[in-house]
Amino acid sequence: MKKYILVVNGPNLNLLGRRQPEIYGKRTLDEINSRLVDIFSKQAELRFEQSNSECAIIDCLHRCGFDTECMGIVLNAGAYTHYSYAIADAIAAIPAPVVEVHISNIFARDEFRSRSVIAPVCAGSVSGFGEDSYRLAVEALILRHG
Amino acid sequence: MKKYILVVNGPNLNLLGRRQPEIYGKRTLDEINSRLVDIFSKQAELRFEQSNSECAIIDCLHRCGFDTECMGIVLNAGAYTHYSYAIADAIAAIPAPVVEVHISNIFARDEFRSRSVIAPVCAGSVSGFGEDSYRLAVEALILRHG
Amino acid sequence: MKKYILVVNGPNLNLLGRRQPEIYGKRTLDEINSRLVDIFSKQAELRFEQSNSECAIIDCLHRCGFDTECMGIVLNAGAYTHYSYAIADAIAAIPAPVVEVHISNIFARDEFRSRSVIAPVCAGSVSGFGEDSYRLAVEALILRHG
Amino acid sequence: MKKYILVVNGPNLNLLGRRQPEIYGKRTLDEINSRLVDIFSKQAELRFEQSNSECAIIDCLHRCGFDTECMGIVLNAGAYTHYSYAIADAIAAIPAPVVEVHISNIFARDEFRSRSVIAPVCAGSVSGFGEDSYRLAVEALILRHG
Amino acid sequence: MKKYILVVNGPNLNLLGRRQPEIYGKRTLDEINSRLVDIFSKQAELRFEQSNSECAIIDCLHRCGFDTECMGIVLNAGAYTHYSYAIADAIAAIPAPVVEVHISNIFARDEFRSRSVIAPVCAGSVSGFGEDSYRLAVEALILRHG
Amino acid sequence: MKKYILVVNGPNLNLLGRRQPEIYGKRTLDEINSRLVDIFSKQAELRFEQSNSECAIIDCLHRCGFDTECMGIVLNAGAYTHYSYAIADAIAAIPAPVVEVHISNIFARDEFRSRSVIAPVCAGSVSGFGEDSYRLAVEALILRHG
Amino acid sequence: MKKYILVVNGPNLNLLGRRQPEIYGKRTLDEINSRLVDIFSKQAELRFEQSNSECAIIDCLHRCGFDTECMGIVLNAGAYTHYSYAIADAIAAIPAPVVEVHISNIFARDEFRSRSVIAPVCAGSVSGFGEDSYRLAVEALILRHG
Amino acid sequence: MKKYILVVNGPNLNLLGRRQPEIYGKRTLDEINSRLVDIFSKQAELRFEQSNSECAIIDCLHRCGFDTECMGIVLNAGAYTHYSYAIADAIAAIPAPVVEVHISNIFARDEFRSRSVIAPVCAGSVSGFGEDSYRLAVEALILRHG
Amino acid sequence: MKKYILVVNGPNLNLLGRRQPEIYGKRTLDEINSRLVDIFSKQAELRFEQSNSECAIIDCLHRCGFDTECMGIVLNAGAYTHYSYAIADAIAAIPAPVVEVHISNIFARDEFRSRSVIAPVCAGSVSGFGEDSYRLAVEALILRHG
Amino acid sequence: MKKYILVVNGPNLNLLGRRQPEIYGKRTLDEINSRLVDIFSKQAELRFEQSNSECAIIDCLHRCGFDTECMGIVLNAGAYTHYSYAIADAIAAIPAPVVEVHISNIFARDEFRSRSVIAPVCAGSVSGFGEDSYRLAVEALILRHG
Amino acid sequence: MKKYILVVNGPNLNLLGRRQPEIYGKRTLDEINSRLVDIFSKQAELRFEQSNSECAIIDCLHRCGFDTECMGIVLNAGAYTHYSYAIADAIAAIPAPVVEVHISNIFARDEFRSRSVIAPVCAGSVSGFGEDSYRLAVEALILRHG
Amino acid sequence: MKKYILVVNGPNLNLLGRRQPEIYGKRTLDEINSRLVDIFSKQAELRFEQSNSECAIIDCLHRCGFDTECMGIVLNAGAYTHYSYAIADAIAAIPAPVVEVHISNIFARDEFRSRSVIAPVCAGSVSGFGEDSYRLAVEALILRHG
Repeated sequence: MKKYILVVNGPNLNLLGRRQPEIYGKRTLDEINSRLVDIFSKQAELRFEQSNSECAIIDCLHRCGFDTECMGIVLNAGAYTHYSYAIADAIAAIPAPVVEVHISNIFARDEFRSRSVIAPVCAGSVSGFGEDSYRLAVEALILRHG
Repeated sequence: MKKYILVVNGPNLNLLGRRQPEIYGKRTLDEINSRLVDIFSKQAELRFEQSNSECAIIDCLHRCGFDTECMGIVLNAGAYTHYSYAIADAIAAIPAPVVEVHISNIFARDEFRSRSVIAPVCAGSVSGFGEDSYRLAVEALILRHG
Repeated sequence: MKKYILVVNGPNLNLLGRRQPEIYGKRTLDEINSRLVDIFSKQAELRFEQSNSECAIIDCLHRCGFDTECMGIVLNAGAYTHYSYAIADAIAAIPAPVVEVHISNIFARDEFRSRSVIAPVCAGSVSGFGEDSYRLAVEALILRHG
Repeated sequence: MKKYILVVNGPNLNLLGRRQPEIYGKRTLDEINSRLVDIFSKQAELRFEQSNSECAIIDCLHRCGFDTECMGIVLNAGAYTHYSYAIADAIAAIPAPVVEVHISNIFARDEFRSRSVIAPVCAGSVSGFGEDSYRLAVEALILRHG
Repeated sequence: MKKYILVVNGPNLNLLGRRQPEIYGKRTLDEINSRLVDIFSKQAELRFEQSNSECAIIDCLHRCGFDTECMGIVLNAGAYTHYSYAIADAIAAIPAPVVEVHISNIFARDEFRSRSVIAPVCAGSVSGFGEDSYRLAVEALILRHG
Repeated sequence: MKKYILVVNGPNLNLLGRRQPEIYGKRTLDEINSRLVDIFSKQAELRFEQSNSECAIIDCLHRCGFDTECMGIVLNAGAYTHYSYAIADAIAAIPAPVVEVHISNIFARDEFRSRSVIAPVCAGSVSGFGEDSYRLAVEALILRHG
Repeated sequence: MKKYILVVNGPNLNLLGRRQPEIYGKRTLDEINSRLVDIFSKQAELRFEQSNSECAIIDCLHRCGFDTECMGIVLNAGAYTHYSYAIADAIAAIPAPVVEVHISNIFARDEFRSRSVIAPVCAGSVSGFGEDSYRLAVEALILRHG
Repeated sequence: MKKYILVVNGPNLNLLGRRQPEIYGKRTLDEINSRLVDIFSKQAELRFEQSNSECAIIDCLHRCGFDTECMGIVLNAGAYTHYSYAIADAIAAIPAPVVEVHISNIFARDEFRSRSVIAPVCAGSVSGFGEDSYRLAVEALILRHG
Repeated sequence: MKKYILVVNGPNLNLLGRRQPEIYGKRTLDEINSRLVDIFSKQAELRFEQSNSECAIIDCLHRCGFDTECMGIVLNAGAYTHYSYAIADAIAAIPAPVVEVHISNIFARDEFRSRSVIAPVCAGSVSGFGEDSYRLAVEALILRHG
Repeated sequence: MKKYILVVNGPNLNLLGRRQPEIYGKRTLDEINSRLVDIFSKQAELRFEQSNSECAIIDCLHRCGFDTECMGIVLNAGAYTHYSYAIADAIAAIPAPVVEVHISNIFARDEFRSRSVIAPVCAGSVSGFGEDSYRLAVEALILRHG
Repeated sequence: MKKYILVVNGPNLNLLGRRQPEIYGKRTLDEINSRLVDIFSKQAELRFEQSNSECAIIDCLHRCGFDTECMGIVLNAGAYTHYSYAIADAIAAIPAPVVEVHISNIFARDEFRSRSVIAPVCAGSVSGFGEDSYRLAVEALILRHG
Repeated sequence: MKKYILVVNGPNLNLLGRRQPEIYGKRTLDEINSRLVDIFSKQAELRFEQSNSECAIIDCLHRCGFDTECMGIVLNAGAYTHYSYAIADAIAAIPAPVVEVHISNIFARDEFRSRSVIAPVCAGSVSGFGEDSYRLAVEALILRHG
């Protein structure tokens, strides 16, 4: 299988399992990623990136976003969701579809979290299902590519 | 299989297929529902409701929301999403999990559509994947139910 | 004459003649409707609906809005004017032109009344002329139908 | 005793006793109503309505609001309190006094609950005393009528 | 016929026919005015003014607004609609009724166009019917005078 | 009877009977207080304070708020209702329940009067019933003490 | 006496005596001006301008504002007070002191009237004293020149 | 001469002469008051109060506001101008006219200073003329008393 | 050389050299214009207009905006920049490109100056370079015409 | 040692130890003050004031703020922090430096607590360290004086 | 020629030519840069930086901003324009003048793009002229240096 | 002594001593750090980081925030204070206490600087004391560690 889906995690998500587990769950990002690989092993290759750097996320979107082998990108932009117009511009600039993902229900938390500056340029968004949010987002891209 | 998932569609969604197909797609609600039944035939019974009435949606949430056979509710509240605190209260009042669904990317359209008053009390939300939004929401409830 | 124009009145307009006559006039809705029939007897059939129910108004717009015999709809949505995005969606969804009507000058009254969520999707609007607002709106549809 | 007071409960209040009892108390609406009948048995007949429908509440206000036997109306409009200008218009249109009632202290909860669109047209309001809010509101109407 | 109606057009309306015809139509202001004269030849004399000057519009309202021969004024204030409190004050100061007119549906366009500072002091308003907006406004004044 | 209820009146309420009687009624504060004593003579001792001083009101809340003989406090904070976070902090700091009272319907008057900074920390509130507001508030505390 | 004070009146003030006399008084502008001349005949020459044109007011400020014979300017800018940044810029640009004047208490009327864009660049302001506002403003300039 | 005018100065005005003299001038409050007495010795008795206490200002307004010997009150409420609705209520409650005074041009300073909560209930206001503001305000009351 | 560029200056710019030279520079408008003629003598004819009148600016845009000899218009609208929707409409209505120019950096000054209502309809904008702003704007039009 | 530092505590801080100890700690104000005296016994005399009165705090700032023996003032203005422009003016008026202090992290609590109207005129601020906030503030003044 | 001008491009501008060419043009950044070198070869050395990293842009401003050989900096900060106060601080901190540049007319696009947080600290700004924006900005720096 | 305190400085703070010394002081960051080491040499080891990179600050918080040897972190986040929700999330995620520090009084400067998005998740904050702000913050952590 040549085609792949890129899963990008933004700031502080490297702390998953250690950071407020009542909100973000007990599993580490590596465990979540491994489980995704298992689930989708027959449908698509999965590749993973994590960075706390806004710039690294943009670079990563640029690198894969024009790659015809890339079926799409699953992006949990963490707190950048709420103010990074630079990431939003990168999403708008690339042909690959990007699906916005959130582990928790961002609308049930702080006021500022209910506003996403990247949502308007994403293909769709999934939030509130814990680590299953990633699974549903990957599936959405496979269905869309389908 | 006794357990069921309820799929509730709100105002103007009876017009699917006839209403702005460039936004909402060409399939009718019946076709979408039939396809959902086909996909999930082995996993859960699906039941469907559609109403243009805020009250009917609340009554429906009350009726199934306390039913232990109900695994959860998929709700596309249409325009009520943006102002019906009464539906939000109904969701908060029932033990069954409710997943918010939107066919289009509500964040990429009119300003007022980017605010959902029911999101804070839903278990999660899925938007922007066309009719696949329903499919992903049903799947989310099945995953959650475990 | 086969073609007709539908005149829809929303919440509390059944009280016309009884409710704050210094604002809404002394005539009942039936009297206003009869007078409209007299004035336009040679130009178009007029049909009338009144409901306090948001849902009933939506259903009514759906029912006639796709009817090729319907030349257009005159809608006084009452207080729903100011918050019913569901009615606005119904107006946007149907091919029949809808003309917004208000008996009083809504801009000269409470702050909240100066904002109409249905105005952006209506073909035009007429307000402030007492019961003549209806007459002018019907005439506007006849001129438009031309 | 011919004169009566109408007690109207709006959306989700049929769930009293089942819905968030830490906020709304453990008693059902029927129990609350029965207790009111007991307390005021010598002073006024009490009649009760409950509906999740905005339209039904408006219709009910229209029906009793012009009835000279009606001493006044106690209204817990639930979530409609915060956006139903249509109910507010109905209250303004009828001669019977309407007293706004809330079980919980609406000002100590979500931001949106601290704004009532019906308050400006009500005769008065009582909130925060649990089921005693109804009792005090009925008493207020009796005092006023007295 | 001695009595007359004054039709006042504000800034940029001298460009009608040349300016964004997809919004404002293809007819020139002179053609629109001539057609109005034809339509109402038996009912009222029509007089016309056009100016890009806020001051000239105010002067014109002062001149005719106290004239007992003037049945009323139809005013398309163009962009001044949205900020000229000076014109609003002039309208409030004169006894002649003023009807606000807009060719396009101002509520369906830029945000700033949905707010009219002259609306609260006008007798009524008509918008969205193309050049028929003028016709309906003149008719409104005749009916009112009637 | 040892237990007492404290009735505190804030700024300008010493002018009752002299100040805008169409809003605040014709009775003086002494008359209102005497009448309360008569009504509740068998149920609770009533004590009264009035001051135009924010500080004096806070001191008074401190003095009685920790007194186990005090069943509760009825507070008409006058204009301080709308900005005295210091009084709000005092209410939050004391164990005695405080009931907010207003003679007029504060929601039907100036914009600024519809916001109470003390409401979120009060046990409940009563407004709009003229001098009966005090009576209902005292009764609420007796019921609560029960 | 060579030195003079210029009194400038803006839009709609030519209607004084005819326009809402309950707000603006019964005297015409000429009468008010004559009375000012009488009162200050020994202290300063008074000159008068009135225009409905924003441009004419600016031109007038330019003309006298650099004139060393001009002791200062009394300006009632009418509705331009609330939005003419161009007049504000003219006031800021000239060395002559400008005193803002209003006949009525602008703070007790419409919301928009409580904001003056020219106030920050004026030497001082006087409002609410009827035609005496002009008298006090002239006196203020004489005292200042003193 | 029996009739008097009361001049009330609020918080921090006891520091005049010591506090930011570039804004408030070099003269002390006593010097300003003495000068006022000199100027108006033949026209009215002047009485003076200064307090940093909101309550003391209210008490003072109550004491003189109903006194038929009092021609009016000149009030520089200092910072209370911007938030004391309690003082505003006191002004509204008394029959004596109150003139608002400010030494500096409050509109040319901090944002918060451009909003006066007492302005809407004052008879008029004078600001920006240094200590002459008091003189003009006293004169305004004498003219008004006339 | 037949083709020309029109340079339009709005309100108060006739005072250049006299008005706040620390912000606007020491040169008069005539000197600036002469210098522009010198610089561009080989590339385009330059024509100049200045007016304090909003209407005159609109008329001027109408006159040249449809002239095929006009390569474009350089517009410093002064304070009208911040509120003249009428000038904005005129710019939108004409085919000639308009370049917005400001001498000072409008974003580093008063809050209200950072908002331009004409910017959205201009071809581009240049600000902050003193009189060189005009030079760069003319050059921009020549490059564009290029 | 002659020089002293004044520690001023505002409304409700006399309740320390009794009021919400989970936020404000268990120690009384006297205990906190004694401990401060112990810690700084060699560096500066400490004096203490506490009042629930806005006026008393202002008077106190006036009294010590010009005293050359006073090294500075530590001020916990309690709820007045959020609206007392009168205290802010007093701070701005005196030469002594004032350090703002808060026991709790005011930014992590209610929205209104995150805005301090006195912060802009204080020398610095310390918040969130429990009673150590006072200690750090005193130290800051000693360092500054040092 | 020793002196140089630095041209800095921010996030996503490395995609020029590939990203929404209808907005940003068809030329790549390298082509634009080469053309600039050609145009200004006789007047100044040009150096170029591009980074998607906020930090790299700040570092770059620090590096050259104190360099006396640097005539100035042309900065297209991309989306950072709208929220990077850190870049704004860097601009304010360095002595070299910075000219803000935008390819498109940012005022004619999304709401959020009409606000630049770096504009207030830039020497000037140029926007809307496509790649000529860079040329005009370089020229502005040469003129300024000139 | 094994335990250490980490002092983190954000964007542009590497310019201390060179950048606006009237606001930020004349000492370089190295000098400030050296002085801190001297002062606290007996109480705690101090470690220092400075970066203009949001990501580097987050990484640094992650690295030390879970280190049991770290007594706490002193953070001057520079301009990131006002918008970096990503840094705020990092602070919330780590067990080590973080103290917010500012050299200048951020509340007395630009509007945007008075809002800190990291304040709600910090243990406390110190601002306005120049370089002593760091000293007080280190001391606060030592006191807290106890």
